[in-house]
Amino acid sequence: MTTGTTTTTPQPAGHSPATTHDQWIVRARAVADALAVDALDRDRANAKPLREVQLLRESGLLALLVPPGNGGFGGTWRTALEAVRVIAASDTSIAHLLGYHYVNLVNLWTSGGPAIQELLGRPTARDGWFWGDSVNPTDPDLVLEPAGPDPATAGYRLNGTKRFSTGASVGDAVIAAGVVSATGEPLLVAVIPRDGGVTFGGDWDNLGQRLSDSGSATFAGAPVPPEHVVGSLAPDRVTPLSSLITPAIQAVFGNLYLGAAQGALSRARDYTVTTSRPWVLSGIERAVDEPYVLATYGGFVARADAVEALADRVSTVLDAAFARGADLTWEERGEAAVAVARLKVVATEIGLEATAGIFEVTGARSTSNEYGFDRFWRNVRTHSVHDPVAYKRREVGRHFLTGEHPAFTLYT
Amino acid sequence: MTTGTTTTTPQPAGHSPATTHDQWIVRARAVADALAVDALDRDRANAKPLREVQLLRESGLLALLVPPGNGGFGGTWRTALEAVRVIAASDTSIAHLLGYHYVNLVNLWTSGGPAIQELLGRPTARDGWFWGDSVNPTDPDLVLEPAGPDPATAGYRLNGTKRFSTGASVGDAVIAAGVVSATGEPLLVAVIPRDGGVTFGGDWDNLGQRLSDSGSATFAGAPVPPEHVVGSLAPDRVTPLSSLITPAIQAVFGNLYLGAAQGALSRARDYTVTTSRPWVLSGIERAVDEPYVLATYGGFVARADAVEALADRVSTVLDAAFARGADLTWEERGEAAVAVARLKVVATEIGLEATAGIFEVTGARSTSNEYGFDRFWRNVRTHSVHDPVAYKRREVGRHFLTGEHPAFTLYT
Amino acid sequence: MTTGTTTTTPQPAGHSPATTHDQWIVRARAVADALAVDALDRDRANAKPLREVQLLRESGLLALLVPPGNGGFGGTWRTALEAVRVIAASDTSIAHLLGYHYVNLVNLWTSGGPAIQELLGRPTARDGWFWGDSVNPTDPDLVLEPAGPDPATAGYRLNGTKRFSTGASVGDAVIAAGVVSATGEPLLVAVIPRDGGVTFGGDWDNLGQRLSDSGSATFAGAPVPPEHVVGSLAPDRVTPLSSLITPAIQAVFGNLYLGAAQGALSRARDYTVTTSRPWVLSGIERAVDEPYVLATYGGFVARADAVEALADRVSTVLDAAFARGADLTWEERGEAAVAVARLKVVATEIGLEATAGIFEVTGARSTSNEYGFDRFWRNVRTHSVHDPVAYKRREVGRHFLTGEHPAFTLYT
Amino acid sequence: MTTGTTTTTPQPAGHSPATTHDQWIVRARAVADALAVDALDRDRANAKPLREVQLLRESGLLALLVPPGNGGFGGTWRTALEAVRVIAASDTSIAHLLGYHYVNLVNLWTSGGPAIQELLGRPTARDGWFWGDSVNPTDPDLVLEPAGPDPATAGYRLNGTKRFSTGASVGDAVIAAGVVSATGEPLLVAVIPRDGGVTFGGDWDNLGQRLSDSGSATFAGAPVPPEHVVGSLAPDRVTPLSSLITPAIQAVFGNLYLGAAQGALSRARDYTVTTSRPWVLSGIERAVDEPYVLATYGGFVARADAVEALADRVSTVLDAAFARGADLTWEERGEAAVAVARLKVVATEIGLEATAGIFEVTGARSTSNEYGFDRFWRNVRTHSVHDPVAYKRREVGRHFLTGEHPAFTLYT
Repeated sequence: MTTGTTTTTPQPAGHSPATTHDQWIVRARAVADALAVDALDRDRANAKPLREVQLLRESGLLALLVPPGNGGFGGTWRTALEAVRVIAASDTSIAHLLGYHYVNLVNLWTSGGPAIQELLGRPTARDGWFWGDSVNPTDPDLVLEPAGPDPATAGYRLNGTKRFSTGASVGDAVIAAGVVSATGEPLLVAVIPRDGGVTFGGDWDNLGQRLSDSGSATFAGAPVPPEHVVGSLAPDRVTPLSSLITPAIQAVFGNLYLGAAQGALSRARDYTVTTSRPWVLSGIERAVDEPYVLATYGGFVARADAVEALADRVSTVLDAAFARGADLTWEERGEAAVAVARLKVVATEIGLEATAGIFEVTGARSTSNEYGFDRFWRNVRTHSVHDPVAYKRREVGRHFLTGEHPAFTLYT
Repeated sequence: MTTGTTTTTPQPAGHSPATTHDQWIVRARAVADALAVDALDRDRANAKPLREVQLLRESGLLALLVPPGNGGFGGTWRTALEAVRVIAASDTSIAHLLGYHYVNLVNLWTSGGPAIQELLGRPTARDGWFWGDSVNPTDPDLVLEPAGPDPATAGYRLNGTKRFSTGASVGDAVIAAGVVSATGEPLLVAVIPRDGGVTFGGDWDNLGQRLSDSGSATFAGAPVPPEHVVGSLAPDRVTPLSSLITPAIQAVFGNLYLGAAQGALSRARDYTVTTSRPWVLSGIERAVDEPYVLATYGGFVARADAVEALADRVSTVLDAAFARGADLTWEERGEAAVAVARLKVVATEIGLEATAGIFEVTGARSTSNEYGFDRFWRNVRTHSVHDPVAYKRREVGRHFLTGEHPAFTLYT
Repeated sequence: MTTGTTTTTPQPAGHSPATTHDQWIVRARAVADALAVDALDRDRANAKPLREVQLLRESGLLALLVPPGNGGFGGTWRTALEAVRVIAASDTSIAHLLGYHYVNLVNLWTSGGPAIQELLGRPTARDGWFWGDSVNPTDPDLVLEPAGPDPATAGYRLNGTKRFSTGASVGDAVIAAGVVSATGEPLLVAVIPRDGGVTFGGDWDNLGQRLSDSGSATFAGAPVPPEHVVGSLAPDRVTPLSSLITPAIQAVFGNLYLGAAQGALSRARDYTVTTSRPWVLSGIERAVDEPYVLATYGGFVARADAVEALADRVSTVLDAAFARGADLTWEERGEAAVAVARLKVVATEIGLEATAGIFEVTGARSTSNEYGFDRFWRNVRTHSVHDPVAYKRREVGRHFLTGEHPAFTLYT
Repeated sequence: MTTGTTTTTPQPAGHSPATTHDQWIVRARAVADALAVDALDRDRANAKPLREVQLLRESGLLALLVPPGNGGFGGTWRTALEAVRVIAASDTSIAHLLGYHYVNLVNLWTSGGPAIQELLGRPTARDGWFWGDSVNPTDPDLVLEPAGPDPATAGYRLNGTKRFSTGASVGDAVIAAGVVSATGEPLLVAVIPRDGGVTFGGDWDNLGQRLSDSGSATFAGAPVPPEHVVGSLAPDRVTPLSSLITPAIQAVFGNLYLGAAQGALSRARDYTVTTSRPWVLSGIERAVDEPYVLATYGGFVARADAVEALADRVSTVLDAAFARGADLTWEERGEAAVAVARLKVVATEIGLEATAGIFEVTGARSTSNEYGFDRFWRNVRTHSVHDPVAYKRREVGRHFLTGEHPAFTLYT
């Protein structure tokens, strides 16, 4: 990975070339190529992904989904998710950060509306803010203590700890879920770490997604000015539009796993073509003529291609749903959610299959730690248990049989 | 299946409503619905599919791919292949006939050029001709005997037998491959069965695709007037455009298998919803709440959805390749062929998996012959061994590793 | 299948050569070979399997499990189940009949004790009685009407209809489950069809197991003399020993599916070796050198071999459990049941996989109905949904996690 | 792992309790339990497995296969391979060392005869020698330089480097393959590292089997006294008996992969039972009641059980082949080799499937590096590409179709 010593945050105005989908993908590939150079070393070092986030910042990708009216590029989910996938093929952890950033960002205005969109979207676009989160629903709630008699003017102080606060420790801003101490009202708020009151555990040491900065965040009186209250999370305040957060995040997952599969296949190909030797008993001179190697690659590639076609189709479905804005119905939201669930199922399958299977076609010496070809499997294996794919199959099956949509949760 | 007693072949001019893709798909669904009524009975009767072809004729679908300049609808492969898929979900045999018809028809002009396109395309459009074929490459060659000293004016007489002459016995016209007796030159010719000289074995009695009319055809002096000589099949005369015949036919296969999978899942759903009982030891009251049933459906549906997305994408690739016409390069042809090969691989997989797997979710009583739910599996199982899918995986794998395209054959 | 015109029922005394396991298996192979001759024709004719049962009778196999003290051969389940498996490889329907016969027979004495063992075991051994059943638990109960004031001396009359009465219409005797009209007591009874009062629907017309004679039986006052009351089926009367009926029947299932897989592979091998042609694009001269054909067979064969090793091990477990007799504990019964459940899972998997997969390695022309290679798949597909294998996986998983055994039911 | 400070090498005479199979397995379980305590830490430390080998030495297992006439226990392959499997479930690397030791040891006398059996077998039994190897056939040959005019009296000096010299650096003795410098004759020789002339690269740093001590060995004039020349490796000197080395080593592989699968399932069970939480959307209170978790475990366990039954059967086949001694025919050797190949296929399948699949049933938090549940997958993934399983499937398929046995190589 190489980052220039003098960096300039891309300005929307200055990036007119990247206004097309294809141009953004070229840019994402450049990021991916830079990350690929030392992905394995960085994975092992398990350091904070500060330089990596800077690379995302310089590419302009962090501002992709900010609407033009707020100074951003006004890109689509179709572009954003393909960018995530392209980067996942080099470094699934950093793609994870980018994907979550998009979800956190869009969540600001689908939950909070135009004022917050302008207030927080504009600096995101202008300065390339990276958004982390602190919302893990299986931990105890963070607590919002009113900072004065009237929190509408005084704001709150945030307290408590959340594990799995992806990207928070490297974020310019963090989206957090907390509960008002006196009333129990659940709120979504934005926290700016440089304003103090938050520390990070640095305690993410898992099998995969090692650079996804998914450790704990501890808030001790972190200031939440009133204008940083994004909105209520009370069930009766959720709208079809704000509930699109879950399909969006699950679509990120699908593109992560697919990208990891594609990256694993691509690295394996390089190895097979340049390094693998034909099996000594095969009677064949080149590994690339070995019938089982060819057919094994062919199966993986064909299945990955089908999942890619679905991923692109589903991105378009997601864009259409977001484009409906406040007119989006629960029925439409449900259809989008099930489309994403179908993608999640097949992306998980190809992700696990291809990343584990490449060793069949690279051979014995490719298990040397010199190559680290296992990192793709470790990444998919780790992230794919975020929520059980069996329950996604159940959702898809139920919808197919009865037309029923899953109720909104942070997983469905 | 119901066919009116007084039928009118649809005229392109009179079918202006069906000028959009969606309108054609509506029409294909109507055909599919009519075929569904007695698909099982017809499958068992194993009779010549005369009424079924008439149904296709009346729908206008037979003229779909004839260019407007020759009196046809000028539809796309995208539309044609989706129509094949939709009909395959009700009756995979009849979809097989329709798909082969399209391939035979387009082959006339990609091999023969504009004159034959007008000569044979126009009556196809006007009268709803159905095209069968007699080209099986694993049988001995048919022989073209000059009908006079100069076959350029006298034409030929065709002799010999070919098995697997799909649709020939119910065809208004047949595309046949023969070899000129004196010179050995391989020619593609059109034969009009009503002009005599051809008989049919009626000897197709296989596990599946029973109504695909795939028995033998025996030619005994069948007349081939000079204008019915479509073109040479000599290897050095094949062009990238004419060689698209193979990707086209393999794309038909992919849509057949996918359509069969979708049809099986749809029939199974109807049964599960209306008839299946929850397993007695499940502690559950409705089959549609049974966790394993739901997840099994979900897996099938998600995988079929991915294959569908790929099928549609590949259809577009095929249209683009045909649209290049004489400018099409071998490189471009190769990319299209590999795209289709990837589809063939995954469509075969979902086709076999879903059609065999539905019994897991319908239960013991669904094996009664009253339902005939096995016909989808029989159809896919039978047709999917037309050419070994292992070799398609090999093609895809080789291309992925080396960029190499398969050489043109009738299978690649 | 050939049956001599003058037949002699084998007498145990006269069959001393078949006292070893291996000799019985030789005998079972002879039955299998005779059945193989016209298995496909008989499958299609769907006639009552009278000649087939006679063939079993002549072989002595019907008397195999009758103890020597009652005039039988005193064979083991290990031998009986391997005989079922060997015959299943030729004709899974007839193996089904034999397996159910064994279960029905042994059920007489594990439920009814030594008196019924002598009363009904002796003619079974002497005359080669074949035992059918009429016990389907998902139908309404049959009703036992007392034939006099004291049924202990007068016996009962049996009334009602049960579907899926396997082997009843060709049975010399039938084991039936009914409920006493006045008291509601559930009883297991033996009915002798030639004594009248029972008719058969002949209404078994399913995808597979077509000769398993699994249609309905209707009882209209069929006499049940008091000595034919086998025992009570009241839950509190079930013993660990009598409850072994379910593991025994599930072990029959496992051997049926494995045998079908082995039969399919064996028929496919004959075809591949004698008839298949190498794929035209393979560059190989003999089908038996084709790499994908070899590896596909290899995978099937290796998996079938593992299931066979387990099947034999489980048969021994079953013999040991039966040998414990009245000393058998529920804990021991549970361990045997789970061992059988594990077999059921893997036998179902290889049964479905191999019988559907053989077409991959036999090729296009093997789908001709001349060969009928689909009958193995039809048989396994049909019988394997008798009870959902997902629930067997659940049983096995629960036992692995918690040590818990499934409660006794007719499926567990 | 705990090793006593004062250790006594077990003497066969002093170990009379362990003369039965079951007693040896109890002893192997004790070794496995000791290794389990810190298996993950030792895996990460990647240190030389000196203490682990000492643990094997103390258990008596190193002397298991030495015949009683040479001071050993005279155990069977059935026992040895089950011991390997049991230890593999805790520490697949150490099981790897034990399995290779057995192969190296038995190779001494099947290649070298009774004199070498006494010369080297006796100290192995008496002092618990551990045998490593240095024979990798894909490296250049080691060279044997005569140590005097007549090597028959002077012996040789061994020179050169071999990678993948498993267990050599911790071995009391090493079996090595070299070529006589002048004549090119290939010889198998024994080298005693403490006699000098050999150094070890310590360069094994691979994804899995990290403690298997499989780095390079470099010989620089290592003394080979004439009595340490085990035998000729010239193709015409190979006998059916000496060629059993390959089936033996492949049987070790099968038991390694199966053991790893069983170990992974066992560790996963502990976690599921004690730590996993039911999925939040499942509506279920305990993870051990979750239907998908139960069925997933059930499938793995049933398949592992079938492979275990086959493994035990194959061990018996191997013992029978060795017991034939010089009378063993090539035909019998071939049957044994194919039986082992079938085991290799299914053991690889369950090994990969179960070790990767456990995360489905343990859930998101189980990917923490605190648990290291990935080590089983890393071990199987790494070792299972030693030689491609596709070629084992090919061998099995070829034998099934034609009866042909694979020719002897170090892989077949």
